[in-house]
Amino acid sequence: MRAVTFQAPGEVRIEEKDEPELLAGDDCVVRVEASGICGSDLHIFHGRVPVEPGFTIGHEFVGTVLAAGEGVERVAVGDRVLGCFHVACATCSSCLRGDYHRCEHGRTFGHGSKLGDLQGAQAEQLLVPRANLTLRRVPAGMSDEVALFAGDVMGTGYHAVAHAGVRAGDTVAVLGLGPVGLCAVQAASAAGATEVFAIDSVEPRLAMAERFGAVPLHLSEDDPKRAVRAATEGHGVDVVVDAVGDPGPLAMAVSLARDAGTVSGIGAYAGKGEVPLGLAWLKGLTLRLGLANVIAHVDRVLGLLEAGKLDPSPLVTHHMKLEQAERAYELYDNREALKVVLTP
Amino acid sequence: MRAVTFQAPGEVRIEEKDEPELLAGDDCVVRVEASGICGSDLHIFHGRVPVEPGFTIGHEFVGTVLAAGEGVERVAVGDRVLGCFHVACATCSSCLRGDYHRCEHGRTFGHGSKLGDLQGAQAEQLLVPRANLTLRRVPAGMSDEVALFAGDVMGTGYHAVAHAGVRAGDTVAVLGLGPVGLCAVQAASAAGATEVFAIDSVEPRLAMAERFGAVPLHLSEDDPKRAVRAATEGHGVDVVVDAVGDPGPLAMAVSLARDAGTVSGIGAYAGKGEVPLGLAWLKGLTLRLGLANVIAHVDRVLGLLEAGKLDPSPLVTHHMKLEQAERAYELYDNREALKVVLTP
Amino acid sequence: MRAVTFQAPGEVRIEEKDEPELLAGDDCVVRVEASGICGSDLHIFHGRVPVEPGFTIGHEFVGTVLAAGEGVERVAVGDRVLGCFHVACATCSSCLRGDYHRCEHGRTFGHGSKLGDLQGAQAEQLLVPRANLTLRRVPAGMSDEVALFAGDVMGTGYHAVAHAGVRAGDTVAVLGLGPVGLCAVQAASAAGATEVFAIDSVEPRLAMAERFGAVPLHLSEDDPKRAVRAATEGHGVDVVVDAVGDPGPLAMAVSLARDAGTVSGIGAYAGKGEVPLGLAWLKGLTLRLGLANVIAHVDRVLGLLEAGKLDPSPLVTHHMKLEQAERAYELYDNREALKVVLTP
Amino acid sequence: MRAVTFQAPGEVRIEEKDEPELLAGDDCVVRVEASGICGSDLHIFHGRVPVEPGFTIGHEFVGTVLAAGEGVERVAVGDRVLGCFHVACATCSSCLRGDYHRCEHGRTFGHGSKLGDLQGAQAEQLLVPRANLTLRRVPAGMSDEVALFAGDVMGTGYHAVAHAGVRAGDTVAVLGLGPVGLCAVQAASAAGATEVFAIDSVEPRLAMAERFGAVPLHLSEDDPKRAVRAATEGHGVDVVVDAVGDPGPLAMAVSLARDAGTVSGIGAYAGKGEVPLGLAWLKGLTLRLGLANVIAHVDRVLGLLEAGKLDPSPLVTHHMKLEQAERAYELYDNREALKVVLTP
Repeated sequence: MRAVTFQAPGEVRIEEKDEPELLAGDDCVVRVEASGICGSDLHIFHGRVPVEPGFTIGHEFVGTVLAAGEGVERVAVGDRVLGCFHVACATCSSCLRGDYHRCEHGRTFGHGSKLGDLQGAQAEQLLVPRANLTLRRVPAGMSDEVALFAGDVMGTGYHAVAHAGVRAGDTVAVLGLGPVGLCAVQAASAAGATEVFAIDSVEPRLAMAERFGAVPLHLSEDDPKRAVRAATEGHGVDVVVDAVGDPGPLAMAVSLARDAGTVSGIGAYAGKGEVPLGLAWLKGLTLRLGLANVIAHVDRVLGLLEAGKLDPSPLVTHHMKLEQAERAYELYDNREALKVVLTP
Repeated sequence: MRAVTFQAPGEVRIEEKDEPELLAGDDCVVRVEASGICGSDLHIFHGRVPVEPGFTIGHEFVGTVLAAGEGVERVAVGDRVLGCFHVACATCSSCLRGDYHRCEHGRTFGHGSKLGDLQGAQAEQLLVPRANLTLRRVPAGMSDEVALFAGDVMGTGYHAVAHAGVRAGDTVAVLGLGPVGLCAVQAASAAGATEVFAIDSVEPRLAMAERFGAVPLHLSEDDPKRAVRAATEGHGVDVVVDAVGDPGPLAMAVSLARDAGTVSGIGAYAGKGEVPLGLAWLKGLTLRLGLANVIAHVDRVLGLLEAGKLDPSPLVTHHMKLEQAERAYELYDNREALKVVLTP
Repeated sequence: MRAVTFQAPGEVRIEEKDEPELLAGDDCVVRVEASGICGSDLHIFHGRVPVEPGFTIGHEFVGTVLAAGEGVERVAVGDRVLGCFHVACATCSSCLRGDYHRCEHGRTFGHGSKLGDLQGAQAEQLLVPRANLTLRRVPAGMSDEVALFAGDVMGTGYHAVAHAGVRAGDTVAVLGLGPVGLCAVQAASAAGATEVFAIDSVEPRLAMAERFGAVPLHLSEDDPKRAVRAATEGHGVDVVVDAVGDPGPLAMAVSLARDAGTVSGIGAYAGKGEVPLGLAWLKGLTLRLGLANVIAHVDRVLGLLEAGKLDPSPLVTHHMKLEQAERAYELYDNREALKVVLTP
Repeated sequence: MRAVTFQAPGEVRIEEKDEPELLAGDDCVVRVEASGICGSDLHIFHGRVPVEPGFTIGHEFVGTVLAAGEGVERVAVGDRVLGCFHVACATCSSCLRGDYHRCEHGRTFGHGSKLGDLQGAQAEQLLVPRANLTLRRVPAGMSDEVALFAGDVMGTGYHAVAHAGVRAGDTVAVLGLGPVGLCAVQAASAAGATEVFAIDSVEPRLAMAERFGAVPLHLSEDDPKRAVRAATEGHGVDVVVDAVGDPGPLAMAVSLARDAGTVSGIGAYAGKGEVPLGLAWLKGLTLRLGLANVIAHVDRVLGLLEAGKLDPSPLVTHHMKLEQAERAYELYDNREALKVVLTP
């Protein structure tokens, strides 16, 4: 079968690989009918996340179950399914607490041997371990490209909002309007946020956030801090989602939150960074950091997609063939695409 | 000034009363510009809730501040304001926990001496104690009849949903589609419920719930239990709101909830009642009973009304003059009206 | 091997059975070194819970792992282990929410075919499915009879308190001082309850509760309601645990709880029952019903047992041999024993 | 009356002041019978927190009500009372959410005009605004020096633990064993922590933590990170309390917490600081920062003190007369005292 493989920084290639086979009793093999390219794939593409040359990449997928182990109960051969981007054991102490994203035996699709040695989804077929947790049936009538979001990007936007405890009637700000930030804008609105301030410096992204009901604020041209204060009687917002992940946006997030508010840091932070600890402490903020617990959320996210309360389809800017993967990565890397969907 | 007074079961009358004066430092006097007739008023009208003859009734109001004590900080003379239906002290042990609805010194407008001896809002003027908690400014551009709902009926619908912990992606059923039930339907949707099953036996109420996005289910003609099961893969819903308050609806609520789900009993129960304890125990349900903590919710409810995520205006079926109060109670008692708004 | 089997109401018998064998990849076989007789076993003994004649009963156990499937990760052959009283799949929608006690594929040891067809623990060996969730290693130095409580009776006492959200500084009342109620007394104290009112009509049980730090209140001789009011400035307690399970105790629980307090109904309710709904509604109570989620709690309960913050050993009144099971059930049925531990 | 006043960095002085008088309807005047010197007073003493020369300092007090406004309901003239260190309005949006520590009109005793212009408690008499929230009756039989802790240092230790959601069976680490850290050790144990790791580099403080049941770990001699890992199967602890407030301890806190655990930053942070954001993000931590919400906790803290589950009396190392204040500040500044109690 054909698969998109990492070769070297800046280089991916279509290669021929053996078709996967069931290894454990709760495995499935899935024929991939759509896969996405995600911001995390770019980290691999640029060599920032080390992956072995020849490793198949990709972790967003929709497809059909070709084979299922005898312990697979929630899906069956022939089912149209979507996947979560990672795999959890369900029984370690993290999973027992519901923290599937911190599973002690967690494995991520398409991220090399360090993250569980699980070949990726940008391929014609995929081996899916722990299928009872990892896979869900696609609701009738849902398109591949909508379903694709449930187990990764929209699951992450939902998490950013849910983990921060947004309640109906709250105000929210979202920093960074890449796909995750735009999904967080939708998720905040779906959870009842009365105002969502969407902050970025890229006009088309601001325009899309506005289309999703947000108040767009240009990072440098609009003075977001003053605008948010003016709109909230000087208080700041209940919840700020930082969908960027650098110390700069985190500092802005701290400045936008109201007293005793919450900052939800969903963007990937790395290393050490300078944080306005004094201000965060004076305000009595809660900071909730980390990647998304998509397994815990996927059923609710699917329900919201099915009901039309979330709709990521405007984010899909490009449909391409798997064999065009090299070109697809180039487009994505040049920020010409928000979401590229690959089909076999 | 003119005021609507209770006289005897089945009899209300317009009477002339003295204008109220400030008594305590955090009192306001409000010129009432709109007041509502509520289901609770019917309990008084029928003598089920005992009120002294000649007592002014009514507890939903919008108006303008005529006078304010020196300790009033959140509103000022001349402000257009709405009120909560009851008054809390802010400092007793219940209030300290945020349970303003269980204030040890709580008083309810227009409910006689037993509930705090506070004259009612169906009058030209109203004395409002503890104004910092009881009153809120009406947001610019909001109509009287929308604002009227924030501190009572919509606050109660919001509470039913919030107190049960509804999360975006949950499924909800609402039993009883009077004004509170219909507001709960809207509140559930605003909080991200993907499906709201609305159950009653009155066709126009079912039609209005459907207009609000719910799945209408006729109590006797539709077999709600079967319909809910069919739509939820046999699980039942995450949250059931009982907006009726009798043992029968509560029993149905228990049957509709999923395992480990929540029943939110916002309808007023009285006396003792037979409950399917065995089933509730087997399912591991949580039952959250009691009237609404509107003071805790009023700011978020106003935000949702202002954003248009809640809109009770379709519930207002009648606008009448204060002096038509006798006729208004008659209409309301005959269930010809959902919500009557009285103006001076 | 020898096993205690149900024969007919009032009759158990030691029978010879085949030794169990591994059936699934996450099964273990355990050599049982201690098992307990529990109140639930009495329901079977009396025929109230129907079990097939010849079915092995018992669901509390400590022992050594004799064999383990290849998917078993948390324990290994030779480990000394304790078990939870039931088995959960870890991946159904209930388990995903952490509600292991409502697992859609849940099975209970020793409760016949209706509850999962899982032979019981009052035997020399036991087949344990889903061992990663069901089994835990016994901490070094912990006795069999202490460990025995973690997965059933103490897990239930802990749940009653934790599920009600008891916080350090709260006041608690416990109705019914059987083993579960006495464990709830300890769990409440361990969680920081400042006063635990322990209510029963059996003097030795009241004495044991007092030994555990509670204020003993005789059901009929002490007027518990007046005593609790007097000790709480008239407010009632923050949390009431009903460890009996009948409508009468539930009514008392409602009367003892403070406004906006919580009643934790851990005792098994059956059928329908009359509840003081009006009072529960006026008070704004939360009722949390259902059996215990011991799988979710077992690690914390073991930690508390190991630290000596919980200590059920005073509850063990009888140590007997497995072959004395008939006599043991007789003693237990006559309420001459609080907890009987059987050894091979 | 005599009062301890700030004069210049490093200089306090006893001065004669006018006795306070009631200003508002919910004020009290209290005759101070014991006041404490706190770490926050040292910030003033050193000029790090700017206070006007001649301002009376001190914010921990126990005494007797000499006069009470007509709106004071929870205490009365002649009552023996303790105070919270700050004053909240009860009705602003922060107070309505229960965040009394972030009151928009908050005022702190003895912290100069910038923090509300409220004269301090190290004096013979004290004006106490908002007395319904600020004051509590001292439970019968409780000593002045124990009661003194409820509204400040022990309230802060309790907050550090409660705000982090410590549950019975959790493991906790406390960094920094000044009075607040030592109180947090006790509060963690009272809330059911099975192990409390207490980290500092001052031997007597480690010894006192051990006396309170903690595992003492010397910051440099013991390798706390390795010790905590070894004791928690490599996981780290559920909750870390940082009672120091510098970036260094915060970095250690991040390293000690388990995946998806919580860091409770109760020590006062200032300015900007470098934080290991990458590690905190990878672990999925929650950081809860800010000073303590003592008004929300004071009743539960008093209950725990009364029950003997918390006992700060070993922290009181010095009893001195008010007129010895200069010497008392000197001792405290030299770290020769943990807690100095001043009496008139």
